[in-house]
Amino acid sequence: MTGPAATFGFRDVDPAEKPRLVRGVFDKVASRYDLMNDLMSAGVHRLWKDAVAARLNPQPGEVIVDCAGGTGDMARRFAKMARAAQLRRGGDDAAIHIIDYNAEMIAAGRERGGEPEITWTVGDAQRLPLPDASANAYVISFGIRNVTDISAALREARRVLKPGGRFLCLEFSQPATEALRRAYDAYSFKVIPAIGELVAKDRASYQYLVESIRRFPDQKTFVDLITKAGFSRAGYTNFTGGVAALHHGWAV
Amino acid sequence: MTGPAATFGFRDVDPAEKPRLVRGVFDKVASRYDLMNDLMSAGVHRLWKDAVAARLNPQPGEVIVDCAGGTGDMARRFAKMARAAQLRRGGDDAAIHIIDYNAEMIAAGRERGGEPEITWTVGDAQRLPLPDASANAYVISFGIRNVTDISAALREARRVLKPGGRFLCLEFSQPATEALRRAYDAYSFKVIPAIGELVAKDRASYQYLVESIRRFPDQKTFVDLITKAGFSRAGYTNFTGGVAALHHGWAV
Repeated sequence: MTGPAATFGFRDVDPAEKPRLVRGVFDKVASRYDLMNDLMSAGVHRLWKDAVAARLNPQPGEVIVDCAGGTGDMARRFAKMARAAQLRRGGDDAAIHIIDYNAEMIAAGRERGGEPEITWTVGDAQRLPLPDASANAYVISFGIRNVTDISAALREARRVLKPGGRFLCLEFSQPATEALRRAYDAYSFKVIPAIGELVAKDRASYQYLVESIRRFPDQKTFVDLITKAGFSRAGYTNFTGGVAALHHGWAV
Repeated sequence: MTGPAATFGFRDVDPAEKPRLVRGVFDKVASRYDLMNDLMSAGVHRLWKDAVAARLNPQPGEVIVDCAGGTGDMARRFAKMARAAQLRRGGDDAAIHIIDYNAEMIAAGRERGGEPEITWTVGDAQRLPLPDASANAYVISFGIRNVTDISAALREARRVLKPGGRFLCLEFSQPATEALRRAYDAYSFKVIPAIGELVAKDRASYQYLVESIRRFPDQKTFVDLITKAGFSRAGYTNFTGGVAALHHGWAV
């Protein structure tokens, strides 16, 4: 291994190796991804995603990048909201571009059905297949911790956004209190791999998910990374006591 | 079976039989009750309980009934908050009376340690061992759905409260959206009994807990019961999209 290490769960790996390892995890879990999210969070991931969509507030005519949008659960929310606004007061169709590194996730999402506003593309968050200053908003939900070079992905988000564009990132984060952290740790290391084993017959992939959450930067460190990538007024909102956090910033 | 049935999970049982059945469940789970709450909710029950304590806002000199307060996790919160207020601006000690039907739960709670303000009593929510109009507040958290006659427990709460006394009830409730309900159902019926089996070697007790949640009245029906028991301005606040709800009312 040469150069700085990438992380794969609790393992340090060669950065060149991480994409293949992450792809392996998502190839395995794609077909059961939404069910597992429901089972692991008792459905609460839906409340977080609804809150992100409400914050994004998609408008008619907007170009929205849904990075790592795999199964389309965010994009479908955005499309419906933009269309509802369009029906009320007119305007052009919104365009929602799902870019996901994993072809299996895209395939699983397409199979579940899309909306006319949505396009599906296999692509890399570190090299988005989009021109500079072309999007009104960039959203990445439970995706960025799987990217090999987080700062490169943030710079790409900044690059594709128009002036005034908004950046939103939903990701697992660090619980705000010690008591919650201990409980959440117990849940993560005892229950989640067991659910993975029970439902998806795949303990290892869910063990990876749990470990990758722990390795991800905490709220404030991540705010700094967003700022360094060129965003203004970066900040965050905790969900469920910091189990997840919505980070945001502006391209000015 | 004569007269109206009581419920025990999804079974209808003789009301005379329910106390024994419920006691059996809590005898079994007492020692692992707090751990299981953490594992089943990823620690989120702590956020709900913190929110209830903040709403109660315990004051120096207040008499607070913590009904079904078993392991003392609410009472310890109340004691610390009342004492912090007392240190800032004086006043008498608060008195927090835990009343729990189950001696095993009380024993488990005492073992974990109390606070000087707390008393521990084995007693029945339907016949509280307290005089009329003697308490400033009555709180019951994840307890009322296990009571055989819910309305009788509400009338007892009303009886022991002074004029101006506040009633707070934290209980599992009905998710507000269909999508969340489906996910929560999957979690409840697949994951929770499996955790019960894995951690407590006791699938049946956790199956009961899940079923008893489903049989409990929904938010609005429960508001009506509270009103009928003699409380004013009854209402509720959903937590986590209605997975739990805090119901409240006033004794005037």
